[in-house]
Amino acid sequence: MAGRPASLSGFPEWLPAERIVELSFLDTIRRTFELNGFASLETRSVEPLDQLLRKGEIDNEVYVLRRLHAGADDADAGLGLHFDLTVPFARYVLENAGHLQFPFRRYQMQRAWRGERPQEGRYREFVQADVDVVDRAELAGHYEVEIPLVVGAAMRALPIPEPVISVNNRKLAEGFFLGVGAADPAQVLRAVDKLAKIGPDAVTALLVTEAGLSAVAAKTCLALAGIASFDTSFADDVVALGVSHPMLDEGLAELVHVVERAGEAAPGLVMADLRIARGLDYYTGTVYETVLTGYEGLGSVCSGGRYDSLASDGTVRYPGVGMSIGVSRILGVVLGRDLVRASRSVPSCVLVAVADEDGRADSERVAAALRARGIPCEVAPAAAKYGRQIRHADRRGIPFVWFTADSTVKDIRSGEQVHADPAHWDPPEPDRWPTIAPTRPEESRP
Amino acid sequence: MAGRPASLSGFPEWLPAERIVELSFLDTIRRTFELNGFASLETRSVEPLDQLLRKGEIDNEVYVLRRLHAGADDADAGLGLHFDLTVPFARYVLENAGHLQFPFRRYQMQRAWRGERPQEGRYREFVQADVDVVDRAELAGHYEVEIPLVVGAAMRALPIPEPVISVNNRKLAEGFFLGVGAADPAQVLRAVDKLAKIGPDAVTALLVTEAGLSAVAAKTCLALAGIASFDTSFADDVVALGVSHPMLDEGLAELVHVVERAGEAAPGLVMADLRIARGLDYYTGTVYETVLTGYEGLGSVCSGGRYDSLASDGTVRYPGVGMSIGVSRILGVVLGRDLVRASRSVPSCVLVAVADEDGRADSERVAAALRARGIPCEVAPAAAKYGRQIRHADRRGIPFVWFTADSTVKDIRSGEQVHADPAHWDPPEPDRWPTIAPTRPEESRP
Repeated sequence: MAGRPASLSGFPEWLPAERIVELSFLDTIRRTFELNGFASLETRSVEPLDQLLRKGEIDNEVYVLRRLHAGADDADAGLGLHFDLTVPFARYVLENAGHLQFPFRRYQMQRAWRGERPQEGRYREFVQADVDVVDRAELAGHYEVEIPLVVGAAMRALPIPEPVISVNNRKLAEGFFLGVGAADPAQVLRAVDKLAKIGPDAVTALLVTEAGLSAVAAKTCLALAGIASFDTSFADDVVALGVSHPMLDEGLAELVHVVERAGEAAPGLVMADLRIARGLDYYTGTVYETVLTGYEGLGSVCSGGRYDSLASDGTVRYPGVGMSIGVSRILGVVLGRDLVRASRSVPSCVLVAVADEDGRADSERVAAALRARGIPCEVAPAAAKYGRQIRHADRRGIPFVWFTADSTVKDIRSGEQVHADPAHWDPPEPDRWPTIAPTRPEESRP
Repeated sequence: MAGRPASLSGFPEWLPAERIVELSFLDTIRRTFELNGFASLETRSVEPLDQLLRKGEIDNEVYVLRRLHAGADDADAGLGLHFDLTVPFARYVLENAGHLQFPFRRYQMQRAWRGERPQEGRYREFVQADVDVVDRAELAGHYEVEIPLVVGAAMRALPIPEPVISVNNRKLAEGFFLGVGAADPAQVLRAVDKLAKIGPDAVTALLVTEAGLSAVAAKTCLALAGIASFDTSFADDVVALGVSHPMLDEGLAELVHVVERAGEAAPGLVMADLRIARGLDYYTGTVYETVLTGYEGLGSVCSGGRYDSLASDGTVRYPGVGMSIGVSRILGVVLGRDLVRASRSVPSCVLVAVADEDGRADSERVAAALRARGIPCEVAPAAAKYGRQIRHADRRGIPFVWFTADSTVKDIRSGEQVHADPAHWDPPEPDRWPTIAPTRPEESRP
């Protein structure tokens, strides 16, 4: 390979120290999901195009595959890369239903691809961490409480700004819009969804001209979109608007349940926010969006909701509820704005120096003894002057250098050098593996 | 999504209990690499086609991407999915050379794609675990010893049949072939590479007719291919063949060094095997192949070698040495033949039962207390009869059921039920997380 290649816009890659931050994020999310009893799953990266194109709105973003020299027998014709982890998960559930135990709790951390115009937080290749519960025929409502709590626990375990999960309910919104006399609630949803972009006056105009609402009804819908609370007081505000519909009542009761129980378990995490419209057209119950406090402009870093038919084989339907953490979107901000850093760029806690090349085997024996005790280390590349070997460690952030000649280990930060036996010496626990920390601790939790 | 979809040949997916085995394998490999001071890296999944097609031999296996509704401005035209992790790594090194510390030790566990005809151990989408050291200008020879030792340590930490890493050396083979008078050593290599497939007589014929060797020289080359040993005695066998060439001497010295040092550090792992020809045409020094004892028919599960120019920007070249563990190939055998099983299909160690739906919050508090102490658990989906809740746990292999009503926890395997406080109770350590174990322990190591 010759010549200096350029990076590809929308296909992010990290440097080694940044990758340590990403890996730590993924490890933390995984641990939280597993502590909550969600099983890991990965699906293949490709799906048949007809599966991928069911959600018509994004068909122009799908990457289609072909083999470079495909013949007429091309078995891979009609395959595309998945653009999320929900479509493959639904397909996996149908394909393996006979081998799965329901309710099925799974998490999935994988890459997905969309041919979108790249910008901060939007990539063509990105990593998502999805967590879902899917059941056969019926899905209990308490999972609509559990999912945002699990995701909130994972987010709060990361050194990032405080997450706020906004929830709304499809039935509440649709019932409300029917209650004010809308003929097509989906049109009202689409208009209200533009609130942040075009403002209340333009939305009111749309509600009248396109959704056919009266001026009063339009005003009432806008008033609904202004209701939000961390406690269940939002329900009184909704009732005060004087709209009545059985579907509204059902949705309101569900949303009260979610906000009440989540508020008990994790105060300050989950907020009812009746402005949330995105996703209401394909979810059937609770919907979720998440912003990071102080970084609201980034948009939702974690979204999801309840599907009454996540999958169906024609006779049995599989309702599900889940959320998807936009790992790449969060990392794009966290690393792009230097909010979190790793303590070093390599796993090694110790560099074992080499006095002369004939003694390399001695250094390797020390390294093997340290590794056997769970201490990551590497042996110096060459028997250079010690000063140069120490610089080798320093440039990578390796805190300790081991000298076999006199059996000493030096903390190169403090300069302290002590006699040590590789069968017994331990580094301070925070030094054993690389750690990550926020650069602006006042903005972030743990 | 409706209708029962079929799985795609060559795109493997695992069931939850199988995924636990895969995850455990990946965790073990990662830990070994990190204990040895290799930094994690991931690269994007796509590369420009001109980068991917430099190794002409496999161009028909590349998957090319296009956006479904791409216009004339398609910025993604000319991108393909990587077919290995070496091409992207070489590109990454060039692109980021100014930000990396050399020698650069990295591992990379990712998916790759090839449009190959699927068969056991050969997939169209697969996971590889690569480990490489790359340096600027010069790369020390001791890394040719270290790489197979690190890979061997990772493989030996897995519950799989004993690995044997066969090594050969490009200079040894090329020098030897030049020494017997071959005009084009690459032609000799290609003929010898067919030994296993077409047998010695046919190879001899090829060496005479296509590589232009004398009958005596052809016989000598076949004799070389018959030499193998776990110690350095292979060198005497080579010398006894009476062939002389400076490049042969250099390669022989390098191979002796690798076999000698590896034999001291990890007896029985690394074998000189002068039959190994695959890869000799693009590697420049040591080459590696690995078989699992008793599963030799599967072919190499782990290959690699030394490149004197892994990458080059025209002025600086970056020599490297590395190996790639075929994780999917190994798992295909291990799971396909049921050689390893997980202790359960979910992370949960405890199912917290629910006495009645009004008491669900009590069960959730117990679960939260257990999780805070690192015990994975889930709460029962419904306040069904206890027998049914116990069956829920049993079907997933969850060993313990917790009853909040009388504060007891039951080991559903033994039936033993004891009073317990979620702030103090601990499961036996082997039960805390799922574990994996070989089904035929006599065949495997640890």
